Amino acid sequence: MRIILVGFGVVGQNLAKLLLSRTDDVYARYGMKPRIVAAIDSRGAAVCSSGLDLQRLLEVKRLYGTVGVYNDESKQDEDGDVMHTGMDVVGRDRSTGSVVDEIIRGMDAEVLVEATPTNLRDGEPGLSNIITAIKHGKNVVTVNKGPLALAMPSLLELAEYNGVMLRFSGTVGGGTPILEFARHCLKGDRILSFRGILNGTTNYILSMMEEGLTFDDALEDARRKGYAEADPSLDVDGYDAAAKLAIMANWIMGMKVTIRDVRFRGIRDVSLDDILEAKSHGSVIKLLASCDESRRLSVEPMRVEKSEPLCVNGTLNAVTFKSEHSGELTVIGKGAGGMETASAILRDLIEVREAMSVG
Amino acid sequence: MRIILVGFGVVGQNLAKLLLSRTDDVYARYGMKPRIVAAIDSRGAAVCSSGLDLQRLLEVKRLYGTVGVYNDESKQDEDGDVMHTGMDVVGRDRSTGSVVDEIIRGMDAEVLVEATPTNLRDGEPGLSNIITAIKHGKNVVTVNKGPLALAMPSLLELAEYNGVMLRFSGTVGGGTPILEFARHCLKGDRILSFRGILNGTTNYILSMMEEGLTFDDALEDARRKGYAEADPSLDVDGYDAAAKLAIMANWIMGMKVTIRDVRFRGIRDVSLDDILEAKSHGSVIKLLASCDESRRLSVEPMRVEKSEPLCVNGTLNAVTFKSEHSGELTVIGKGAGGMETASAILRDLIEVREAMSVG
Repeated sequence: MRIILVGFGVVGQNLAKLLLSRTDDVYARYGMKPRIVAAIDSRGAAVCSSGLDLQRLLEVKRLYGTVGVYNDESKQDEDGDVMHTGMDVVGRDRSTGSVVDEIIRGMDAEVLVEATPTNLRDGEPGLSNIITAIKHGKNVVTVNKGPLALAMPSLLELAEYNGVMLRFSGTVGGGTPILEFARHCLKGDRILSFRGILNGTTNYILSMMEEGLTFDDALEDARRKGYAEADPSLDVDGYDAAAKLAIMANWIMGMKVTIRDVRFRGIRDVSLDDILEAKSHGSVIKLLASCDESRRLSVEPMRVEKSEPLCVNGTLNAVTFKSEHSGELTVIGKGAGGMETASAILRDLIEVREAMSVG
Repeated sequence: MRIILVGFGVVGQNLAKLLLSRTDDVYARYGMKPRIVAAIDSRGAAVCSSGLDLQRLLEVKRLYGTVGVYNDESKQDEDGDVMHTGMDVVGRDRSTGSVVDEIIRGMDAEVLVEATPTNLRDGEPGLSNIITAIKHGKNVVTVNKGPLALAMPSLLELAEYNGVMLRFSGTVGGGTPILEFARHCLKGDRILSFRGILNGTTNYILSMMEEGLTFDDALEDARRKGYAEADPSLDVDGYDAAAKLAIMANWIMGMKVTIRDVRFRGIRDVSLDDILEAKSHGSVIKLLASCDESRRLSVEPMRVEKSEPLCVNGTLNAVTFKSEHSGELTVIGKGAGGMETASAILRDLIEVREAMSVG
């Protein structure tokens, strides 16, 4: 299986490490040899139609901050071939964007792995990458929430029309297979509603506030530990949870919605008093993303009883599904992390591979 | 899909109800029409090669306490056919056992659903029913833990040799898809170890003891609520959890073990003092079934920190899997219940059906 990997940040690099460490095992268990034939970051691209040397790719990234010099440094004998011309000009007279486009269109590969940063304004550059790949008959595995949050119904339709798969395990719950659980493990039952803690950063902040910290101090603490970005708005104002909720609503409930259909509110208004008041009733305040039985989608701070399985602390994620016949089912796990998310990509690649060999 | 259902107690009856209520939906979503062509309880059998009238079957069971009179009461025109001779003698000059055997061998059906009571001494009558079905090319869905706890490795081998499926979702976690989660949702990752609360009755008793009840009072309370049997030994002494652990070890970890390979101890020795002592350290005592990284299997009362996701109360079940790349993942749900377990059977039937249409 030949893979074009766009985005070589924490998740992309962890995917390379994961593939390095698991090659033999993945072949033995799934008969699959994933090879990255192109890796692209914001400053350049590395290509090799027979598969990049991942050890070297990681080393080049570490030393030079970009994969763009991978091909410059190699002897380029049997490598580089058709795409080589494209590579020469990366960062010179053409923008990386058009090179990405050229690689996705022109290079022989079965799958695009889209791992560029999430952008909830216009979904770019992920959205264009995904559309180009699908239109050129390539399956897509994305960990980028932006394109899905903004255009999931049309992307799923486009993929179906073009006979390719679009998978996105890593967009919800990091390595925790929340989407798979809901879709594959409850065959024969019906999910009536669900609610969950989908953002680890805000859950960490709320957990710290329960220990007595103010919102500002808890946010500062989360920043120091690397849980919150310099601009925490994506997490704190509920955008991230709302994006994930929209993805779940499409995939699990068959709804055709985008983030615009989610009514959401973050945790900036939650005061220490609110939390202490809840505590005195055996409850805590959590940022809950929910799809109720009338299929209303919302993200907002809500009281949850401390004894509920859903009530997890720290950066954990948790979702409780209410099913027609099996009652309430809860899945809990780490919601983020480079290696965790990389493992979700590998899971998707295996699914794509299995679907390819069946159909 | 034609089904022979052996065992028509709570679970069997709930399966009939579930099929009645979900016929259209299951056909629309999975292209499958499950028909029960034979239903057998300890006192008799009902057969109809074109599919039993489930409403009537439930009614007959309610009125007469056995399905054995279903055929006697009908006009038996196009029904009954070949098996009719067999039916006439149920409860007369032949034992039900040999009739069961005859039906499983001789009747055209794709699947045996084995729902007779769990017997951990010799696995009968479930063990013989399952072996007969497999040898005669029938897929098997069982909710009976006995045969698996005692002979799972050889039963799986026998099924593979005969090219049929053996499925058992409902044996662990009731309706909670614990086995499916571990096997299907973590593709590409590796489960290193797991531990869980697999028996709802003992978890209820321990939860009540935490509230201050003695073991005897808590057991009595569980009996009154219908959570514990008249002979509570299967639950209280750890047999039930050990049986489930053996099933998980085979299915999830690929081990070839039976209940005899599980070191187990129940909760009779747990004193109120032990529980209060744990409580003073922020912990509770739970009956934990575990498979550690050295693949040692054990069931015993252990301390668990109250803040762990695994730490659920009441009759809930919970399992935490430690995976190589995705960290700790926890699944929580109701561990028992007639309708919940029936929904697990339906899930298995759908899997069998999907495998039949592929291969």
